[in-house]
Amino acid sequence: MADSIRESRGNRIRLVVAYDGAGFHGFARQDGLRTVQATLEETLTRMLSTPIEVHGSGRTDKGVHARAQVVHFDLPYGPPAERMVYVLRRRLPADVIPLWADQVDTGFHARFSVVRKTYRYLLYRGAAPNLFLYRFSWHVPGVLAVEAMREAAVHLLGRHDFTSFCASATPQEDKVRSLYRIDFVESPNRLAIEVEGSGFLQYMVRIIVGTLVKVGQGREAADRIPAILAARDRRLAGETAPPHGLCLWNVEYPPEYGGKVVDPEADL
Amino acid sequence: MADSIRESRGNRIRLVVAYDGAGFHGFARQDGLRTVQATLEETLTRMLSTPIEVHGSGRTDKGVHARAQVVHFDLPYGPPAERMVYVLRRRLPADVIPLWADQVDTGFHARFSVVRKTYRYLLYRGAAPNLFLYRFSWHVPGVLAVEAMREAAVHLLGRHDFTSFCASATPQEDKVRSLYRIDFVESPNRLAIEVEGSGFLQYMVRIIVGTLVKVGQGREAADRIPAILAARDRRLAGETAPPHGLCLWNVEYPPEYGGKVVDPEADL
Repeated sequence: MADSIRESRGNRIRLVVAYDGAGFHGFARQDGLRTVQATLEETLTRMLSTPIEVHGSGRTDKGVHARAQVVHFDLPYGPPAERMVYVLRRRLPADVIPLWADQVDTGFHARFSVVRKTYRYLLYRGAAPNLFLYRFSWHVPGVLAVEAMREAAVHLLGRHDFTSFCASATPQEDKVRSLYRIDFVESPNRLAIEVEGSGFLQYMVRIIVGTLVKVGQGREAADRIPAILAARDRRLAGETAPPHGLCLWNVEYPPEYGGKVVDPEADL
Repeated sequence: MADSIRESRGNRIRLVVAYDGAGFHGFARQDGLRTVQATLEETLTRMLSTPIEVHGSGRTDKGVHARAQVVHFDLPYGPPAERMVYVLRRRLPADVIPLWADQVDTGFHARFSVVRKTYRYLLYRGAAPNLFLYRFSWHVPGVLAVEAMREAAVHLLGRHDFTSFCASATPQEDKVRSLYRIDFVESPNRLAIEVEGSGFLQYMVRIIVGTLVKVGQGREAADRIPAILAARDRRLAGETAPPHGLCLWNVEYPPEYGGKVVDPEADL
């Protein structure tokens, strides 16, 4: 397997990185702004003394984090993929953490090869914000009816037109997406909402979370979700939850590329 | 009790705050630099339309965090202490989190009334740094012999001259301090070292941690600690652990002021 990869035409590297979104204007390159893509490209270009263009599994908005963003780039030559992570760890700023890298054939594309993605949204429910989580959670003190939120979430599972649950300015014509899983993970003062799907529209997870919180706070009924979906009207769903609670949690590729890039049980 | 406090001469407020030290040049006011003390004073002065001077339980160095820093200040008038926390929560930057406040008599002083303090130092032992903890932990991958570290720590308990375990430039003449407790709290990939003492010299906890890590990595013997203490020579102890792993964890006052300001079991 390793041999057949080495024999393929290009030298394509897949790199998995985590980042703290607070200091970035999102993933995608933008002139004059600090972005994750530009940071990776500049670091790799300096490190390898050749211009490197990086392709991500998708954008993340300003302020959104990633536990597992996937990028790929092509190299004319360079250190072996495993060694690259150690070199990058010393060269990248502290808020971009390279996790692992491997060499892949040029049939792999960080974005087009994606099968599923998982996002996690973290709510912190303590009376005061939590020092260790304030950068990574939405502080929602007060009563939250988690059972009602679970009921509401069930209506979102499956294949739907998510026009009501994305930014009005979403560029894509086709708003049909599939959600495979919405899990609620509770621990003291924390509620993590994991959403796994085929792909996500702009602000989609944040609007889903804003709507679920509205249900949890008793300002919307769980059984109203089907009508909100059917109306295809953004104004009917809840507010857009703030970006700093959101984290790109996992990316899944076909089995020949190893499936999920992070073990779902991993402590990263 | 509440009545007798209100009848005392001044209107002294005790305020407990947490902060993320990454964005501050330490606690203590310094001209032209962002510090926690200046941030609190400016916010309170604007909020109360009268100049407020804030006294802390002690300094924390640049980059060091606090889960529970205590300050006091005197007010000519103003909202009740409990209400002040809610107002401050909306006015302070996100990296300073007010936890609670109460009114105290003017016999209370944030610094001079301290009985004990607890610092916590967090080590992260995973192969890659942890996204959610990189701001609050020292990344120490590789083998660490925690049992040897525990053995070494026992020699530091009690009353000692800590000249070998503080910055050479420490201004205090008297380097004798008492350590009451050094606990090792292990969880997957994490090792928290809690140090409770009568008071701490400059860099003292960080040098203790640097030395314990040196023992854990087999570069120093646990039973060398008594000789290092006796030598009163900073050069014999280990390196100074980086500031971002350190957190002022709790402050204890006499029973009439409620003892520890944070429940040791609290999830803050």
